[in-house]
Amino acid sequence: MARKKKSEEKNKRQPVLKVIPLGGLQEIGKNITVFEYEDEIIVVDCGLAFPEDDMLGVDLVIPDMAYLIKNREKVRGIILTHAHEDHVGALPYVIRDLDVPVFGTKLTLGLIGSKLAEHGLKDKVHLQTVVQGQSIELGPFEIEFIRSTHSVADTVALAIKSPVGVVILTSDFKVDYTPVESEAIDLTRFAQLGSEGVILLMCDSTNVELPGFTMSERTVGESMEQIFMQSGGRRILVATFASNVHRIQQIVNAAVKFDRKVVFCGRSMLNVVDVATDLGYLKIPAGAVVDMDDINRHPSESLVLIVTGSQGEPMSVLTRIASSDHRKIGIMDGDLVILSANPIPGNEKYVFKVIDDLFKRGADVIYESLADVHVSGHACREELKIIHSLVKPKFFMPVHGEYRHLKRHAILAQSLGMAEENIFISENGRILELDGDSAKLNGSVEAGRVLVDGLGVGDVGSIVLRDRRLLSQDGLIVVVLTIDKDSGEILSGPDVISRGFVYVREAEDFMDEAREAIKKALDDVDQDNGEPTGKRGWGFTKALIKDSLNGYIFDKLKRRPMILPIIIEV
Amino acid sequence: MARKKKSEEKNKRQPVLKVIPLGGLQEIGKNITVFEYEDEIIVVDCGLAFPEDDMLGVDLVIPDMAYLIKNREKVRGIILTHAHEDHVGALPYVIRDLDVPVFGTKLTLGLIGSKLAEHGLKDKVHLQTVVQGQSIELGPFEIEFIRSTHSVADTVALAIKSPVGVVILTSDFKVDYTPVESEAIDLTRFAQLGSEGVILLMCDSTNVELPGFTMSERTVGESMEQIFMQSGGRRILVATFASNVHRIQQIVNAAVKFDRKVVFCGRSMLNVVDVATDLGYLKIPAGAVVDMDDINRHPSESLVLIVTGSQGEPMSVLTRIASSDHRKIGIMDGDLVILSANPIPGNEKYVFKVIDDLFKRGADVIYESLADVHVSGHACREELKIIHSLVKPKFFMPVHGEYRHLKRHAILAQSLGMAEENIFISENGRILELDGDSAKLNGSVEAGRVLVDGLGVGDVGSIVLRDRRLLSQDGLIVVVLTIDKDSGEILSGPDVISRGFVYVREAEDFMDEAREAIKKALDDVDQDNGEPTGKRGWGFTKALIKDSLNGYIFDKLKRRPMILPIIIEV
Repeated sequence: MARKKKSEEKNKRQPVLKVIPLGGLQEIGKNITVFEYEDEIIVVDCGLAFPEDDMLGVDLVIPDMAYLIKNREKVRGIILTHAHEDHVGALPYVIRDLDVPVFGTKLTLGLIGSKLAEHGLKDKVHLQTVVQGQSIELGPFEIEFIRSTHSVADTVALAIKSPVGVVILTSDFKVDYTPVESEAIDLTRFAQLGSEGVILLMCDSTNVELPGFTMSERTVGESMEQIFMQSGGRRILVATFASNVHRIQQIVNAAVKFDRKVVFCGRSMLNVVDVATDLGYLKIPAGAVVDMDDINRHPSESLVLIVTGSQGEPMSVLTRIASSDHRKIGIMDGDLVILSANPIPGNEKYVFKVIDDLFKRGADVIYESLADVHVSGHACREELKIIHSLVKPKFFMPVHGEYRHLKRHAILAQSLGMAEENIFISENGRILELDGDSAKLNGSVEAGRVLVDGLGVGDVGSIVLRDRRLLSQDGLIVVVLTIDKDSGEILSGPDVISRGFVYVREAEDFMDEAREAIKKALDDVDQDNGEPTGKRGWGFTKALIKDSLNGYIFDKLKRRPMILPIIIEV
Repeated sequence: MARKKKSEEKNKRQPVLKVIPLGGLQEIGKNITVFEYEDEIIVVDCGLAFPEDDMLGVDLVIPDMAYLIKNREKVRGIILTHAHEDHVGALPYVIRDLDVPVFGTKLTLGLIGSKLAEHGLKDKVHLQTVVQGQSIELGPFEIEFIRSTHSVADTVALAIKSPVGVVILTSDFKVDYTPVESEAIDLTRFAQLGSEGVILLMCDSTNVELPGFTMSERTVGESMEQIFMQSGGRRILVATFASNVHRIQQIVNAAVKFDRKVVFCGRSMLNVVDVATDLGYLKIPAGAVVDMDDINRHPSESLVLIVTGSQGEPMSVLTRIASSDHRKIGIMDGDLVILSANPIPGNEKYVFKVIDDLFKRGADVIYESLADVHVSGHACREELKIIHSLVKPKFFMPVHGEYRHLKRHAILAQSLGMAEENIFISENGRILELDGDSAKLNGSVEAGRVLVDGLGVGDVGSIVLRDRRLLSQDGLIVVVLTIDKDSGEILSGPDVISRGFVYVREAEDFMDEAREAIKKALDDVDQDNGEPTGKRGWGFTKALIKDSLNGYIFDKLKRRPMILPIIIEV
């Protein structure tokens, strides 16, 4: 009997833990990670990405949820690590399909509350607050929320304890020993878990190209105080990320210290300040804040404006101020503007445009290359080494970064003694299977990206994007032909209308000649066949119009506008 | 008599030297600079710019030449400082309107030769070769070509001697004491001219944000040798700018030293190597080069491929290799790829895409953050201080850079003791007037940019670009209505066709409903007015179609495609 059972067990497939990154766009292993053990799933984070340059007109990119929807009965909950868009921003879309509780720390859930409200989902989502250090159980998983540090407060790393072992997922993090108004990252806990045995480490790779350490958030406060001290008689504007509550706290502290009033500007800034103040993460002394409508009642040298727009976003407060496009605030000669943020890759040109505009209007601008008014939220190489050395995982999956980051993180792990075969650079949708002893990449699930344009989710695909790209390059020419449905004769046209092709005044003669070129092509075929245009297949006629016009335009101008032939039968 | 003459002279306007930057896009005082004294003009450089992101479909941007064409009788010649596109690239366009001699050093003229040939202008342009150190006279101007150093060989700075004093124009430069196969920048000459008296300095501001010194080109050769030495058994690919002849020389030298054959790949690379070898700027030992068609006859570890594509340009060799899209070369596991260039601002994402792709295919990639395989061609702050201190100009105009660069260069000059009122941040088209004693910005000439798209020069303007932008965002909907010209009744339509709007399968129902929305709007007005659609003005009907469709779509999808109503009368 005992013998039989043993052999049955041997035949039975050993239960495995599956780890599947979903979504992500530029970055791998971001946005969503799925943990699956037998028939139970937990989902870590629920983020979105911003469109790449060639996704014309697209507003947001969210992960394809097909796999989770197919397995929705198995999903026990969604765990959020921190309040940044790339970790929580897809929640309003995902939660419509997955009716499960959502776990996160107080600030994380507080900040997504207003987003859910915008989508009319505020009361429909079951949010459960946890505190740093707490553990919860979900099915076969125990999830421990480890105190961590990043550029938004109340961030956690996760220890996910499963029947096959413990997985540590750092999420976005830095090793900050002296964050503002909160405790340092809990390195001790990483060490304890490490010495108890960790089967897999999934670790942030964003800054793996940078040597040394990321400076503490607190150093920014010191720089701010220096600048405020030397700023006598000038108005100060500081642009930073609204979600960086600690940064805002430090700017407020510097303002109070140098007897300035604070003005918060920008919708997301006001929203974060409200939520963070309510929840006790932001401590603003009574009387320290002035409403934007009242700034003219205060001498400008007694004000600090904390504004959105550190990335040069077109509709943000700073961008509008810089282009004299803000209703209430204009740059005054001698204003001191501090950009307390570095451009996110891809945003450089927008940020520099704003800086140039501010300089032109007479402001002094302090930005990254001039002073230490920003620190990163991500761990550099020496910090990554700390985590690897404390956690001592059996297997390692570098995440959060483009391929080169993951590759270099893998090499870093090898330099610390990890065997190459124990390192897995995964892909979105790829399954990593872990039993107690071994790990392997084994198969894939449906994964990818869904584009959001306005209210449309997923109705913009590759054909639509290809057409938008074509239209954006050389514009469009519409050719309309009206045909008598009985005789097949052309009643009207070809009429030729263009948009985005050439300047109208230049276009008139050109369009006349283009019309003649089409007409001649149609006539030639009519004569050859001895029958009128309308008696032939429309596909043939449309192709003829396209080819003749294309040839004519490419000869003349070396351009290829989109050509849209329309045949109307009356 | 003497008295009368004196008073006449007093009344007569003192002759002034006018200095006018023309063209330029992101950068100010680049591309072209005009020097005008009484009735004579010389033109310094003749460059183009690459389109900004919002110039959809545009290939090149050249300066508006209106001012020079209006004054073409006055122009005595065009002086080129070095062979980069932003200083010579507009010559084929400009020379059609200005039939004047073109002066430049041997390599500069050699490299533009093939460009002129492409435009069928090879024999039509009067090119006159000068050597570093030489002076020429053109009307009232004496122009001295001062030996300088930059990322292309045979670069010069200019001393322009006019009746009102000497102007020094650095053009693009760095202070390189040990360039490759050529002499150092002639600092002594800057010092001599400075001690004789310089009225105006126009100085490169590109790297004014960077402290210290730019490293010598020679250091790159040392890094290359290190890497080659440790690369045993692997094929090496190096991507760099084709025009950087000294860089190519050093790569060739390292290849020869470590017994590797060199393969040049890419049209511009082959062209530059041909020209530079012919003219003696590039010294390649016999038998050192292998043709791309023959690479399979050589063991891969004995090859160094020098390729185009260091900026991730879509059609370049490296980009095509990285995406497995090159006919003859593929990445082999273990290939060592060196990117000997930094991304030009705006190109970062393309370059990193190429790096990611190369890593994915199994190559090792060495790029900026990993090793010293590139140095800039522009002077950093300490080098700028050298030039200011030697030249000791009376007036200063910072050039080459966006506004913040010019502003910071102005502040740097002030920190060296120059009075703020002696510094002029100019704009394209703005006139700086100098007599012997004073300088002032006084008036403007017509200046701006002309967009080149295919063979069209100047036929793409702001309306065309606006339409391309609209089309790229939410696509297009064409609405066609056919009307009986006698009765005014609708014979056919509204027919609705979209491109770049929504995915076709989703679109069908939507388009049906859109058609109904338009129809209803037209019917309502017909009924109100008691007359058919065709009897009303077309403008009115088109506006009605646009408004009704716009409203319907924005309600449903929060998008705003371009709507193009077409009314056909038969």
